[in-house]
Amino acid sequence: MSDFKRALKISRKKNFSDWYQEVISGAELAENARVRGCMVIKPYGFAIWERMQQVLDKRFKELGHLNAYFPMFIPIDLFEKEAEHVAGFAKEMAIVTHHRLEQKNGKLTPAGELETPLAVRPTSELIIGESMARWIKSYRDLPVLLNQWCNVVRWEMRTRMFLRTTEFLWQEGHTAHETEQEAREETIRMHEVYNWFICDILKMFAIPGKKPEYDKFAGAKDTYTTEVMLQDGKALQAATSHYLGQNFSKAVGIEFQGRDGKLHNAHTTSFGLSTRIIGGLIMSHSDDDGLNLPSQIAPYHIVIIPLLKSDTDSVFNYCEKIKNNLPKDIRVIIDKKEDSPQNKKWNYIRKGVPFILEIGEKEIQNNSVYFTKRIFMEKQTLKFDEFINNINNLLNEHDTELKNRNDKRCLEKINKSINSIDELKDYFNKQNGFVMAKWAGLETNLDKLEELALTIRCIPTKQPNISGKCILSGKETSTEAVFAKSY
Amino acid sequence: MSDFKRALKISRKKNFSDWYQEVISGAELAENARVRGCMVIKPYGFAIWERMQQVLDKRFKELGHLNAYFPMFIPIDLFEKEAEHVAGFAKEMAIVTHHRLEQKNGKLTPAGELETPLAVRPTSELIIGESMARWIKSYRDLPVLLNQWCNVVRWEMRTRMFLRTTEFLWQEGHTAHETEQEAREETIRMHEVYNWFICDILKMFAIPGKKPEYDKFAGAKDTYTTEVMLQDGKALQAATSHYLGQNFSKAVGIEFQGRDGKLHNAHTTSFGLSTRIIGGLIMSHSDDDGLNLPSQIAPYHIVIIPLLKSDTDSVFNYCEKIKNNLPKDIRVIIDKKEDSPQNKKWNYIRKGVPFILEIGEKEIQNNSVYFTKRIFMEKQTLKFDEFINNINNLLNEHDTELKNRNDKRCLEKINKSINSIDELKDYFNKQNGFVMAKWAGLETNLDKLEELALTIRCIPTKQPNISGKCILSGKETSTEAVFAKSY
Repeated sequence: MSDFKRALKISRKKNFSDWYQEVISGAELAENARVRGCMVIKPYGFAIWERMQQVLDKRFKELGHLNAYFPMFIPIDLFEKEAEHVAGFAKEMAIVTHHRLEQKNGKLTPAGELETPLAVRPTSELIIGESMARWIKSYRDLPVLLNQWCNVVRWEMRTRMFLRTTEFLWQEGHTAHETEQEAREETIRMHEVYNWFICDILKMFAIPGKKPEYDKFAGAKDTYTTEVMLQDGKALQAATSHYLGQNFSKAVGIEFQGRDGKLHNAHTTSFGLSTRIIGGLIMSHSDDDGLNLPSQIAPYHIVIIPLLKSDTDSVFNYCEKIKNNLPKDIRVIIDKKEDSPQNKKWNYIRKGVPFILEIGEKEIQNNSVYFTKRIFMEKQTLKFDEFINNINNLLNEHDTELKNRNDKRCLEKINKSINSIDELKDYFNKQNGFVMAKWAGLETNLDKLEELALTIRCIPTKQPNISGKCILSGKETSTEAVFAKSY
Repeated sequence: MSDFKRALKISRKKNFSDWYQEVISGAELAENARVRGCMVIKPYGFAIWERMQQVLDKRFKELGHLNAYFPMFIPIDLFEKEAEHVAGFAKEMAIVTHHRLEQKNGKLTPAGELETPLAVRPTSELIIGESMARWIKSYRDLPVLLNQWCNVVRWEMRTRMFLRTTEFLWQEGHTAHETEQEAREETIRMHEVYNWFICDILKMFAIPGKKPEYDKFAGAKDTYTTEVMLQDGKALQAATSHYLGQNFSKAVGIEFQGRDGKLHNAHTTSFGLSTRIIGGLIMSHSDDDGLNLPSQIAPYHIVIIPLLKSDTDSVFNYCEKIKNNLPKDIRVIIDKKEDSPQNKKWNYIRKGVPFILEIGEKEIQNNSVYFTKRIFMEKQTLKFDEFINNINNLLNEHDTELKNRNDKRCLEKINKSINSIDELKDYFNKQNGFVMAKWAGLETNLDKLEELALTIRCIPTKQPNISGKCILSGKETSTEAVFAKSY
């Protein structure tokens, strides 16, 4: 493949933001909808989400969680029960006020006003908590471990495909426990499931940790986050897990008779991962030729492009033979559509299919397989049997390269030598990245961070335990935090 | 099992409607939500829906359909593009008019009024059509075969759990084709997929056919329906498939360059099946002891209840041994919860688990399996190996009985000897059922049907081709229709 030809027009270096849009459109992942801030997830983008759902859903079920479905509409008076929670979400809720349309002066107009307006769920702690309050009577009913895959709406003013959209898809886990300890263990367990999914399955780079007090989920006692670093050095809060204490439990009345015969409030948790992770995946692994995908999430591992000259049948037969000889768990398609092989090939490069095979009469004669390794953008020819027998090694090589390449890029963007706000300013004037520096946990000088468009992303779980001066307050502390720009 | 003890308090005979509610609550399928007309689908009910999704989704994909996701919000002016469509749905749409909440006089109040109000999708022909219009340029891009699993909202005034709820879950297929013939073939193909799913997988009884002209989907040219008969002799429109002609295609501009080089409008179809089918399933197979489930949809085929006296460990081990020796595709749980075996057993009877095993020291000593066949409410003991080796036969027996029992009940409620409205009236004064009688396709005397709370459910695909007099108009016709009460 020529070094001069690229599958995309815009490179990362030229304009990262435009490049991101071109990766999305080039891979046919999604497009903006006519409705402000909403997107259409196209079949190839949705297939990636379905693969993610399968992996996570299996893990949730192994850990005892049961899927269920709760109403999307939440009467607005229910929000009055948890003051912090509503304060966090009131500014971004879609509100249903009417239940029919009428023609008025030749124009469709809302009619049938509701007595109590309904919010479209921005998250479901309150409505699920209300059901839990009915279901839980005794400590024998605990724990309750629920999960729901659904759409949620947060009225965002500045949107960006996948990363921040008005409507998005997610899973939200909600659990109730007998004791604080059990609820805290569940919070950490699900945080670790996310870390595993994001780093081991999606091969992304992340620093797991706790959110600062002032930046927790609205109504939570503790929020754990998986802070992903993207290729531009910015951070993405990729998934969060919350210990909610007894806040929601008291708000909606989740009470149970304990082992001591007395009434207690349950301790609850919630945790969520959304389609925003697809944006993170794109910004982690894509290159100037488009998308790259980890094998567990790739809708197809292999696409076979038939090169048709005279003997169409024997080429199709040979393609089928390759497909049928591969292991059952290898996802293969043969693209028989009416289009030039070159067009097809560049389409699949943009889509990040790990192995793109071009099969014609030459391959039949030589009993060989000619293919492009997407992650290396290299061509290779293998004997038929060699290709079939080595497919798992090839996929491992693909995943290892994906992971190493991204990890290397990210590790280079980690800075541990910043000792003051001035140094922080200098650093971010020149580049983006994750600065790991001392922070004493006080809210001193947060406004100065804001001026630099920086935030404290998390207090990492792994701490160096060396004392030093907080770069914001000057106080002595052994705690380190991650400072970065973010999406 | 004693003939006198029943798992439910209310029998079908005593009060069918209350019995239905008790089946739902007894099997922990769902419950009413605080929001008018909405329901909470509890884990066991949702597990049934997930099984249905898996079977249908696999079939859709085999037939080339791709899943995608489109926005839930539809700007209300988009509805102005298809007059019949909006006329059909305007009276039942939830409308979002505001995008935040504010505290006013100590009360949360909608604020941030939208310029164009948004409808929550009642169905997605227009919004998906609008995307198709962007994607389709040439005949080479056709057919486009899409499907979406999502929630929809129809503001129903009279609701009933599963059968008619304000918010429900469904799949909606949407396809675009080059020719009328191809679109009509797709419409029938998907109608037949529904017939297969409902009759062969769910073991329900249905008469497939076409909806009368006046009762088609709003905006369709033809609507095909699978009309299920329930135990009370009423009908349920269980799934529909629509040929939309070029109506929506013209409304949203789905144009393509044809093989003749000229611009044409695509022919489109849509088809859907929703969580209402769970209501139909319950009303088809449940008995006075609760739910019964076809094996392909049952969340569990087998539950094992350990009977614990002294030697707890060896009982658990024997339970595990049964579980581990069953084929991998048999879904088994061992219920180790703290509760009496009797309570557990009656719970699983109400939940319709096909085989309920009670395993104690006696079974270990005899190397046997003691179990209840839910569909027969009969007890049986088999040797360990016999049970393991016969599980597929046992499941077949279960499914055959489920199917035969329901088919027999339904066939008895089919009447083919009605020749006038008076006879129709007499018949429905005494019972409910499907009356198959002549109908010339005219709208004459439909008001008289309405007085009897009857509707024409469909014109069955299988016609007797014998001439006779239309029971509504007196005109000679060879066409037969199904007359019934419905949900």
